[in-house]
Amino acid sequence: MFESAELGHKISKQIYARQEPKLRAALLNAQFDLAQAKKFPLLIVIGGVDGAGKGETVNLLNEWMDPRHIQTRAFGEASDEEAERPRMWRFWRELPPKGKIGIMFGSWYTDPIVRRVLGKSDDAELDASLEDIMRFEKMLCDEGVLLLKFWFHLSKKQQKTRMQELEKDPLTRWRVTKYDWERYKAYDAFRQISERALRETSSANASWTVVEGADERYRSLTVGKLLLDAMKKRLAKSNHLERRVQAPPLSSDNLGLLRDLDMTQQIAKQKYETQLEKWQGRLNLLSREKKYFKKHSLILLFEGSDAAGKGGAIRRITAAIDARHFQVVPVAAPTEEERAQPYLWRFWRHAPRRGRITIFDRSWYGRVLVERVEGFCGVADWMRAYGEINDFEEQMARSGAIVCKFWLQISAEEQLKRFTLRQKTSFKRFKITDEDWRNRKKWNEYEQAVCDMIDRTSTDIAPWTVVEAEDKYFARVKILKTIVERMERNL
Amino acid sequence: MFESAELGHKISKQIYARQEPKLRAALLNAQFDLAQAKKFPLLIVIGGVDGAGKGETVNLLNEWMDPRHIQTRAFGEASDEEAERPRMWRFWRELPPKGKIGIMFGSWYTDPIVRRVLGKSDDAELDASLEDIMRFEKMLCDEGVLLLKFWFHLSKKQQKTRMQELEKDPLTRWRVTKYDWERYKAYDAFRQISERALRETSSANASWTVVEGADERYRSLTVGKLLLDAMKKRLAKSNHLERRVQAPPLSSDNLGLLRDLDMTQQIAKQKYETQLEKWQGRLNLLSREKKYFKKHSLILLFEGSDAAGKGGAIRRITAAIDARHFQVVPVAAPTEEERAQPYLWRFWRHAPRRGRITIFDRSWYGRVLVERVEGFCGVADWMRAYGEINDFEEQMARSGAIVCKFWLQISAEEQLKRFTLRQKTSFKRFKITDEDWRNRKKWNEYEQAVCDMIDRTSTDIAPWTVVEAEDKYFARVKILKTIVERMERNL
Repeated sequence: MFESAELGHKISKQIYARQEPKLRAALLNAQFDLAQAKKFPLLIVIGGVDGAGKGETVNLLNEWMDPRHIQTRAFGEASDEEAERPRMWRFWRELPPKGKIGIMFGSWYTDPIVRRVLGKSDDAELDASLEDIMRFEKMLCDEGVLLLKFWFHLSKKQQKTRMQELEKDPLTRWRVTKYDWERYKAYDAFRQISERALRETSSANASWTVVEGADERYRSLTVGKLLLDAMKKRLAKSNHLERRVQAPPLSSDNLGLLRDLDMTQQIAKQKYETQLEKWQGRLNLLSREKKYFKKHSLILLFEGSDAAGKGGAIRRITAAIDARHFQVVPVAAPTEEERAQPYLWRFWRHAPRRGRITIFDRSWYGRVLVERVEGFCGVADWMRAYGEINDFEEQMARSGAIVCKFWLQISAEEQLKRFTLRQKTSFKRFKITDEDWRNRKKWNEYEQAVCDMIDRTSTDIAPWTVVEAEDKYFARVKILKTIVERMERNL
Repeated sequence: MFESAELGHKISKQIYARQEPKLRAALLNAQFDLAQAKKFPLLIVIGGVDGAGKGETVNLLNEWMDPRHIQTRAFGEASDEEAERPRMWRFWRELPPKGKIGIMFGSWYTDPIVRRVLGKSDDAELDASLEDIMRFEKMLCDEGVLLLKFWFHLSKKQQKTRMQELEKDPLTRWRVTKYDWERYKAYDAFRQISERALRETSSANASWTVVEGADERYRSLTVGKLLLDAMKKRLAKSNHLERRVQAPPLSSDNLGLLRDLDMTQQIAKQKYETQLEKWQGRLNLLSREKKYFKKHSLILLFEGSDAAGKGGAIRRITAAIDARHFQVVPVAAPTEEERAQPYLWRFWRHAPRRGRITIFDRSWYGRVLVERVEGFCGVADWMRAYGEINDFEEQMARSGAIVCKFWLQISAEEQLKRFTLRQKTSFKRFKITDEDWRNRKKWNEYEQAVCDMIDRTSTDIAPWTVVEAEDKYFARVKILKTIVERMERNL
C-alpha cells in the first residue's frame, strides 16, 4: 500500500505557483457552498508517519480556507471525563455539525495501531478494533458525513533524513524529541501494522489516501485537489440522502414476542407494597456500593406505548437512589444542534461517567419505532439502525456500563381505558393529544416494529426485558427485580 | 441568622399526613406549568450542615415532582477539564435551561467557605468571593432565573446527636465517616463563616432561607411550601422581563474615542510584508512556549463594523499558529439550546482550557452593540451588561487567560467603498445583504454604542485596542504587534 508513496513524487516551484492560487480560490468557494447548504459535514482524518507533513498540511488547509468554519482537533491523552466513558465518546463530542469542516489530528486509529506496535494487543484484538472502526465509519457515511482519510507517508530513509534536517535548523529543532527517535526505531513494525490497518479499513465510502510526504508542494496540491474534488462531487448531488435501496420487509413471524405474553399477571396492592420496599431497598444498597461503581455505570432505558406506565416505573426507581447519582433524560424532538449531527449523537452526549446512573425515558430506539412507522427516516436508515444500535450499546457495555432495556407492553383495551381516565383527571397533568390517538390507529404497525426491535437488538450484553404492564404493580416490581438481579450478577 | 433555626420547630405526624399530599400535588402542577411555559428556569441551591437533611430533601423533591424535568448535580472535586478553566465554568455548564428545575448540591459557596474555615484564605479574600457571588446571582436573576437558596442548619448539639443516631443504625452507619467527625470539630468556625457568607449574600432577588434541619417533617414542608410559593408567584407574572427601569441615557461626551483617531495611518505593501513576517514569527514562537501555556490560555476577540476586516485579520493570526492549538468561534444568532440560557452561557461554553487559544469573531459585546441599537434587549439589560461583561472577563483573566479585544474602525466612506467592491467580486464570497445596508443607516447610533462600550469595558486586565483599520495592512500589523506585546509582558 505504501509503495506508490515512495516513488519520489515532486512538483516544481513553477507548477505549484501556477496551480496553488486557483486551487485555493476553488477550495474557499466549495467551503462557502458547504456552509451555505448545511446539508452535510466534511470530516478529515489525518494520520501517518511523524515528519511527513501532517501538521503542515492541517495548517495549510486552515490558511487556504476560512478557519472560522473549520474545527481542528488534536487528540492527545484522554481527559478524566473522557477516560471514564466509552473510547469513542471523545470523538463523538468533536464531530463537526452539518456545514462545517472538522479536521481530526489523531483519531480512532491511533490507539489500536500504537497498542499493537507496542505489543499491548494481539492480532485478533487489532482486527476486532478495525472491524468496529469500519462499522463506525459506515454509519457516519450513511448519516451523510463526507469522510476523507489521509495517511502521510515517508520511507524509513526519508524519515531519518527529515528528522535530521529538522534537528539541524535551530528554528525547528524543538520539533524532534527523544521520543520521536524512540518511535523511529519501531518504524518497521509501525509500517507493517499501519499498512494492515489501512488495507482493512479502506471501504467504498471511506477509503484511505496515502500521500507521499517528502515533497511539500506535491503533498499540498494532492490533498487540496482531492478535497476539492470530493466536496464538489458531493455538493453537486442535490439530494444525497435519497434512498436508493428499498430494503425488503423483515420476516414477520416474530409477533409472538408480544402476543404470547401472559398479560393477566398481577400483584395485589398489599403484596406490591412489601415487594416494592424489598426491591427498592436492595437497589438502594447496590447503588451505594462504591467499589462496584468505580468500575461501572448504569444505563436504564424505557420504551413502551403511550400510557404504558414508563413515568411511574421510573419514579419508583429514582425514589430508591440518591438524586446526586442519577440523571433522567426525557427524549423528545431533537434540538437544532442535535439535528446537525448523526442521530446517535444526542444519546452519546448523555453517556454516563463511571459511578453514574442515566435513565432514558424513550431512547435511540425511536429510530426503529416512531421514525420507522411514521416514515420520518428512510427504510434503509432504520434497517441499518439495528446494527448501529447494537454497536453503540456494546461500546457502552465494554466501558463498564450495565445496560437494562425495558419494553412496557399493554393491550389496546388497557390503553384506551387509561386514555379515558387521563382525560378525566386533571391532577395527573397528562395530556392526551391528537397524536396519541393517531398513534393508536397504527397499533399493528407499531406491534411489528416492536417485535423486530426486540428480535434484532436483544443481545447478551444488553438484553430486552419485556414487561407485562397491564397491571402497574406487577410491572414495577418486575422492573426493579430485573435491575437488581442484573447488577448483582455483575458484582 | 441561625438562632431562629434552633427553636425546635416540629410538625406532628397528623398535620404532615394532612398537608403533604396537597403540597405534593400542587408542586407537581407548578412544575408542569413551568415546563409548559418554558419562560424561565428554577435553580435551587442547597447548602448547610452535614446531617441536617440536605440529601434527604433533594431526594424528596425528586420524589414529589417529576424527576424527568429536574437535573440534580452534586459538585465534588473538579475534573481536569473543569480545573483548567475559570472556577465558575463547572456551574455554568450545569445551569438548567428554561422550563427545567436545577438542584445544585454544593455550589459556588462551598469553596470560599471551606477555604476560609481551613485558614487557606483571609477575610478580605472571603469578602471578595462573596461580592463576586452577589454579582453573579444578580445577573442570573436579571436574566430571569428563579433562584432559591436553602441552608440546612443544626445546632452543635443537634449535629452531634444526629451523627450518633446515624452511627447506631447499621443501615445508615456508612453515612458517618471519620472525615465527618473531623469537620464536626470545626463546627464553630464553620458556623461563624457560614453565617457571615449568608448574611452578605442575602439579596432581594436571591435571599437565603435557613431551614431548621432537626425535624424531618418540618424541614420538608418548609422547603416544599417555599418552593411552591415562589414558583406560583413567578408563574403568575405573565411577563417578568418587562422593563420597569428605563435607564437614563449614557453621557455622550466620549465620541472622541473614535472620532479623534488618526485614520490616515498606513503601511506600504513592501514594509507590510516584512512587518507581517516579523510579528507572525514572534507570535509563532510565543505560541509554542510550553511553560507559558501550562498556566495560560489566550482569548482574542474581534469586533468592528461590517467589512472592517475582521476575517482578514483573524486569518493573519491563525496562519502563524498551529491549527491544533486554536479554535475560531464565529458568533452568529444563538441556537435553540443557547437561547434557553442566560446570554453569556454560549460564550462560557467556549472558554478555553489552559494551553489553548480561542478567537471570537464577534462576541458577547453583541449585547451592547447590535442588541442595544436594534432594541433586541431592554435598556436595563444592556446597561447591566457592561458590569456583567467585566466580571466575565475578570474571571477568565484570573484563571490565566490573556484577553485581547480589538475594535476595528473604518470610516463610513471606506465602508461604502468596500461594500461596492464586494458586490463586484464574486471570488471573495462576501455577500452584502440588505441588513448590511440597513446597519449603515444607523452609523451614528452604532458609533455611540461603540464609544460607550470602550469607555465602560476597557479594564486593566482586558483593555480594548482600537484599531485604525482604514488601511488593512496597518490594521493587521497593529493587531499582531499588540498580541505579541501583551503575551511578552505576561511571560
